[in-house]
Amino acid sequence: MRQFVAERDWDKFHTPGNLAKSISIEAGELLECFQWGESADRERVTEELADVLTYCYLLANKLGVEAEQIVLDKLEKTRSKYPVDRSRGRSTKYDQL
Amino acid sequence: MRQFVAERDWDKFHTPGNLAKSISIEAGELLECFQWGESADRERVTEELADVLTYCYLLANKLGVEAEQIVLDKLEKTRSKYPVDRSRGRSTKYDQL
Amino acid sequence: MRQFVAERDWDKFHTPGNLAKSISIEAGELLECFQWGESADRERVTEELADVLTYCYLLANKLGVEAEQIVLDKLEKTRSKYPVDRSRGRSTKYDQL
Amino acid sequence: MRQFVAERDWDKFHTPGNLAKSISIEAGELLECFQWGESADRERVTEELADVLTYCYLLANKLGVEAEQIVLDKLEKTRSKYPVDRSRGRSTKYDQL
Repeated sequence: MRQFVAERDWDKFHTPGNLAKSISIEAGELLECFQWGESADRERVTEELADVLTYCYLLANKLGVEAEQIVLDKLEKTRSKYPVDRSRGRSTKYDQL
Repeated sequence: MRQFVAERDWDKFHTPGNLAKSISIEAGELLECFQWGESADRERVTEELADVLTYCYLLANKLGVEAEQIVLDKLEKTRSKYPVDRSRGRSTKYDQL
Repeated sequence: MRQFVAERDWDKFHTPGNLAKSISIEAGELLECFQWGESADRERVTEELADVLTYCYLLANKLGVEAEQIVLDKLEKTRSKYPVDRSRGRSTKYDQL
Repeated sequence: MRQFVAERDWDKFHTPGNLAKSISIEAGELLECFQWGESADRERVTEELADVLTYCYLLANKLGVEAEQIVLDKLEKTRSKYPVDRSRGRSTKYDQL
């Protein structure tokens, strides 16, 4: 991906703020697949998800962090915030992730 | 992550549509770090990015696809759409990713 | 609203791009009310909707257009795009609004 | 607008949650105009803003509230939260709107 961006000289557009905007824009396109309900074209969903992930990886790269590592770190934090016995089957507190 | 979700019996909330909503919501929180400009707290950005990625991985899991694989597949498609010689240093076409 | 912004000298933050970001951020907070389903606190929904509208009005003001007028103009366009006889009860084409 | 929706029998799709999703989706399209910077096509921005506003008005109608009234109500609340003397020229606290 880094090579792809470098070849096209696109890095200059990829400020953290622009990448955050791009993640939101692509997240909106992904959400559009589900605008009126759960039935969505699986292939289109996969492509839109790939677009969100692409910009996430570009931002992670820009921040100098590893995508999988920061997800695991956050999971540890969330684990202590929502202990099994108090969160089982309830979405109420989870909203505040 | 799958274990974390299973322990809390949260899988029942994780329809593809709800996960797509969650990605959009978290993308908005990430964008909030850059609401008035590029200066943003690096630690907060990392945490918000982790939240977006978490829901992306949950949706990929639900779709039965690998996050890194679908990003590479999409990259191949984009590569043929934006050949180096016609895209160098220009953001105009890139907008349509 | 203009007076409120002027008193606080906040107009300098309100570039069209920053207002567009703000609309997305607030739209995400509104969506959060419905993250796991349709049951949402009516008062919170109303407040989040007010936040989205506030930034919409600030952007309309910045563009020199009237919110209600541009909605009516767009409605006329959409009316010819989705004639009654071909759109009745179907959401498929509507997705492309 | 109500007549337009009724003629097409689209009201059944317009649950509050679906309208909130639609607001987020359209906000993403508006943001796309500013993906790589402030230069954006004025006409396209106006149309995308109209789409966001359309769904905002449909949700206000669904909630039984007036768009302009809830914006004024919220403005009163925000006014007491950000007194002129402590907010002048600073964006820091404003982020938490």
